[in-house]
Amino acid sequence: MTDEFQKFKEFRQKMDQKILNKGNREINRFYALDKNAYNEGALSAETKELLGLVGSLVLRCNDCITYHLWRCIQIGLSDEQLFEAFHISLVVGGSIIIPHLRKAVSMLEEIRSSHEFSG
Amino acid sequence: MTDEFQKFKEFRQKMDQKILNKGNREINRFYALDKNAYNEGALSAETKELLGLVGSLVLRCNDCITYHLWRCIQIGLSDEQLFEAFHISLVVGGSIIIPHLRKAVSMLEEIRSSHEFSG
Amino acid sequence: MTDEFQKFKEFRQKMDQKILNKGNREINRFYALDKNAYNEGALSAETKELLGLVGSLVLRCNDCITYHLWRCIQIGLSDEQLFEAFHISLVVGGSIIIPHLRKAVSMLEEIRSSHEFSG
Amino acid sequence: MTDEFQKFKEFRQKMDQKILNKGNREINRFYALDKNAYNEGALSAETKELLGLVGSLVLRCNDCITYHLWRCIQIGLSDEQLFEAFHISLVVGGSIIIPHLRKAVSMLEEIRSSHEFSG
Amino acid sequence: MTDEFQKFKEFRQKMDQKILNKGNREINRFYALDKNAYNEGALSAETKELLGLVGSLVLRCNDCITYHLWRCIQIGLSDEQLFEAFHISLVVGGSIIIPHLRKAVSMLEEIRSSHEFSG
Amino acid sequence: MTDEFQKFKEFRQKMDQKILNKGNREINRFYALDKNAYNEGALSAETKELLGLVGSLVLRCNDCITYHLWRCIQIGLSDEQLFEAFHISLVVGGSIIIPHLRKAVSMLEEIRSSHEFSG
Repeated sequence: MTDEFQKFKEFRQKMDQKILNKGNREINRFYALDKNAYNEGALSAETKELLGLVGSLVLRCNDCITYHLWRCIQIGLSDEQLFEAFHISLVVGGSIIIPHLRKAVSMLEEIRSSHEFSG
Repeated sequence: MTDEFQKFKEFRQKMDQKILNKGNREINRFYALDKNAYNEGALSAETKELLGLVGSLVLRCNDCITYHLWRCIQIGLSDEQLFEAFHISLVVGGSIIIPHLRKAVSMLEEIRSSHEFSG
Repeated sequence: MTDEFQKFKEFRQKMDQKILNKGNREINRFYALDKNAYNEGALSAETKELLGLVGSLVLRCNDCITYHLWRCIQIGLSDEQLFEAFHISLVVGGSIIIPHLRKAVSMLEEIRSSHEFSG
Repeated sequence: MTDEFQKFKEFRQKMDQKILNKGNREINRFYALDKNAYNEGALSAETKELLGLVGSLVLRCNDCITYHLWRCIQIGLSDEQLFEAFHISLVVGGSIIIPHLRKAVSMLEEIRSSHEFSG
Repeated sequence: MTDEFQKFKEFRQKMDQKILNKGNREINRFYALDKNAYNEGALSAETKELLGLVGSLVLRCNDCITYHLWRCIQIGLSDEQLFEAFHISLVVGGSIIIPHLRKAVSMLEEIRSSHEFSG
Repeated sequence: MTDEFQKFKEFRQKMDQKILNKGNREINRFYALDKNAYNEGALSAETKELLGLVGSLVLRCNDCITYHLWRCIQIGLSDEQLFEAFHISLVVGGSIIIPHLRKAVSMLEEIRSSHEFSG
């Protein structure tokens, strides 16, 4: 049942490793910069992950959406909160977002039922 | 000194009035939907305005950025918080965001020094 | 032979149902607004579906393209008409549209040969 | 009163001339291809201009919007028809379209009151 | 091992043939224009393919990326050169590019190990 | 005659200074990363600036286009070379690029005639 999420995680980890091992120093710095952006600071980690989620939704990147949904769930955000972020994405980005929303809601179910969360 | 912000507000109000007066019922409904999206709910109004701001930055819409900056300032967000939202936008959206960031920082100054905020 | 179109329809229906059942009133309103946009009015339903199709092509959303192709075929548009809409999308949006055009033409065949249309 | 439309037309004509005179044969072919796309064919010229307008709106290009509005008005489309095309653009593309819609409605007024149309 | 690249090439060839056979003269002209754009001229073929690659990466089109990677490899560009082009794409386009970069690096391996290149 | 280019340079320098002075360490790192991306490496500085130019054109960012044009001219690229890069951008990105091309050609003239280049 959690097939797609599992495949996403594995492909992501495998390819990131290959990219980082390639030794392009600037790309590796970009990866570090990207990771740091979501650390707790003047804004909470919850808010920052939601910002990443909405940015990913309006730019329509399924893998980015899956990643930030995963992080949002790890941090403890509720479906009700996530659906309000979905609505803002939908209003800002329009109906062109809907196929990504369908995918997001499907992944949301997968992630919640994955063994990481369903114990 | 607050010229551009003032012009933005006036043009926005004038044109929205013309659009709503035109009587296309569905467009008017879209306007209502857009307005409601930022109301306090399961997510705070602060978080929602930041979501609107980051959505506008990564989609690179100067007027939308100005509007959400204005709202963020009305709600009481600090420059430090806004710059963390700017950084997430920059990392997600890339250097193509930088010209919009320059404009945003320029408008941020204008808005803070406008008579609405500087008493 | 009509595998992908069938899967698209099923996933679309299943996920839209889940999204609407979630009870976020504003998202449900957006769905209604989206549906109404293509109703016959001062512009014909044919023209409106073509507008939806070209909007989807230039924004490069495969599922949106499939949906509007399906509607265009239900309404009776010919391949010759659809290819003229494809060409406008191609000129406006550039060669980056070509992979979506390939997919569109493949779906167009599937839809026309599906039992809904081939009797 | 028709300042911006006039300036748009003059800059467009001057720069297109410079670009075509530069003698890059492939760019000149692209210009011809672009022009031909809106000729009456299996779809009417009205429909094609509306497709160009909605493509321009969802891709958020003010100059492209102004150009297609101008052509739509030359061809005889009514405000009611144009506002239905605006609504489809708004639903497909989201609130990020609104600043372009404001500009479009402002240009629509300018174009209708320009001496080409108000005789 | 070279499954995805093979499937991409076959689908591309099959659908392009169908599109060209459909006889829409303007679409066929667009295809010719697209092909000519990468011919050696004042800029080398290497540079032009890299321009196509970066254009495809920042616009986030997987099939376009695969096509230009294939061409870059045929022309003899090294991984080190390609990774510098990847880095520029990443900086210009932001972290939203990362999933396309993962896919690109995966296809890069497939292409290099395909019988066209590995003898 | 070089008004717009001059204004661009001044606004860019002033705002970048303000942004860097604000002390958000991650934003400052992004700026450094952006600058490094165009250094001579496995690809020449000429190629890298052209990659930046085409990336900016297809993403339709006027200020980014102006910046990379300026750098391309400093490095010694000819108009003939730049127009081939323009053509690739046009084919990849479509007619929606044309207004940015008009602006680019206008800035190209301004930059070449500015005292930095015309001695």
